[in-house]
Amino acid sequence: MKIAISKNILSTNEEYAVSIRNFLKQKNILALNLLSSPGAGKTTLLEKTLEKVKNKLKCTVIEGDLNTSIDKERISNLGINSYQINTGRGCHLNAKMISEAINNLKLDGLDILFIENVGNLVCPASFDLGEDYKIVILSTPEGDEKPLKYPIIFREADVLIINKIDLLPYTSFSMKKLKKNINQINPNLETFYTSCTKGQGIDGWIKWLERKKDSKNA
Amino acid sequence: MKIAISKNILSTNEEYAVSIRNFLKQKNILALNLLSSPGAGKTTLLEKTLEKVKNKLKCTVIEGDLNTSIDKERISNLGINSYQINTGRGCHLNAKMISEAINNLKLDGLDILFIENVGNLVCPASFDLGEDYKIVILSTPEGDEKPLKYPIIFREADVLIINKIDLLPYTSFSMKKLKKNINQINPNLETFYTSCTKGQGIDGWIKWLERKKDSKNA
Repeated sequence: MKIAISKNILSTNEEYAVSIRNFLKQKNILALNLLSSPGAGKTTLLEKTLEKVKNKLKCTVIEGDLNTSIDKERISNLGINSYQINTGRGCHLNAKMISEAINNLKLDGLDILFIENVGNLVCPASFDLGEDYKIVILSTPEGDEKPLKYPIIFREADVLIINKIDLLPYTSFSMKKLKKNINQINPNLETFYTSCTKGQGIDGWIKWLERKKDSKNA
Repeated sequence: MKIAISKNILSTNEEYAVSIRNFLKQKNILALNLLSSPGAGKTTLLEKTLEKVKNKLKCTVIEGDLNTSIDKERISNLGINSYQINTGRGCHLNAKMISEAINNLKLDGLDILFIENVGNLVCPASFDLGEDYKIVILSTPEGDEKPLKYPIIFREADVLIINKIDLLPYTSFSMKKLKKNINQINPNLETFYTSCTKGQGIDGWIKWLERKKDSKNA
């Protein structure tokens, strides 16, 4: 009975995700689903990314949060159009929420749709939002063993951003151990190393983003 | 329909939680539910706590993790009895899991049962495990706005441990802002400030623990 309910929720989600994916494809919009633990740096990554690309690419952000619009305000301060989803007790965004957000957003001429998920390394991994790529952000103070402990999200990810590398000297995080752990879970995972607060390592990620936008147009 | 299912899961959970609470009360066992984001320092707090109290108090640990027994091994290395629950895709422990763990553990003469929940600031907040107290650990790199963004877990908590205070000089975390945010959500929250890796600030927490164990016996 439990499994039947769960399958049903996921298949309804999948229907919404497919229609979102088709819609975004028609409009040539690149869509990215940003996933991490609370406080790993999703919003700061977005801020630094938007500062770099906003004059070249038209971007919009969907912000997921239980209760506040703190992150949306940070995005709005950059002059970027954004949309808040508050989930209440909900631990993840789902495709129906994204579908409603898209209906409320003006997406004509848009290049990139960023979706910042609820801070959670478990539940968001199971919900396809119709995105092109899943981007997981792991911050060094969280520890190098996280890919083993939360394998589903690291397996589902297309890109891994190791953030807060400026804190490396003050933590026990080992880049060597991380690479070994990632290798067990998802050996082909494209990885970037950043300190978003210091603006370090953003350029490689921006190039990846621009390349993916170009191939979406092609 | 959705609400009915959800209520049903929670009421079944509540039945297990009540029977766990009664059982632990009869045995004079203090039970603590440790909650945090991934990598905030739950296991390190446990290690430092167990090192300090293991000669005075008999302790056992139930470890929750999606996939590994990495944390259980760390606890076993201290010579402490522990029990692993692997949740697979599950984002929280529930009272039925704890009930099964208790049936498999030898609890006679036990003083404290520590339960380390799955690393997640959302879902575990909604599941009573029959514990006496919920302990939330927030690490400074996660940010001072977390109580506003994840209010349910901070409202449910009895104790807040601000961990990784050694990283304060390298982050934008403001203790003043944190206190203001906590005040909005749960003004009477008992708070300790620790760096578990450096062994700083543990003593206040240990005294709280011993006091609670004493009043459980009384």
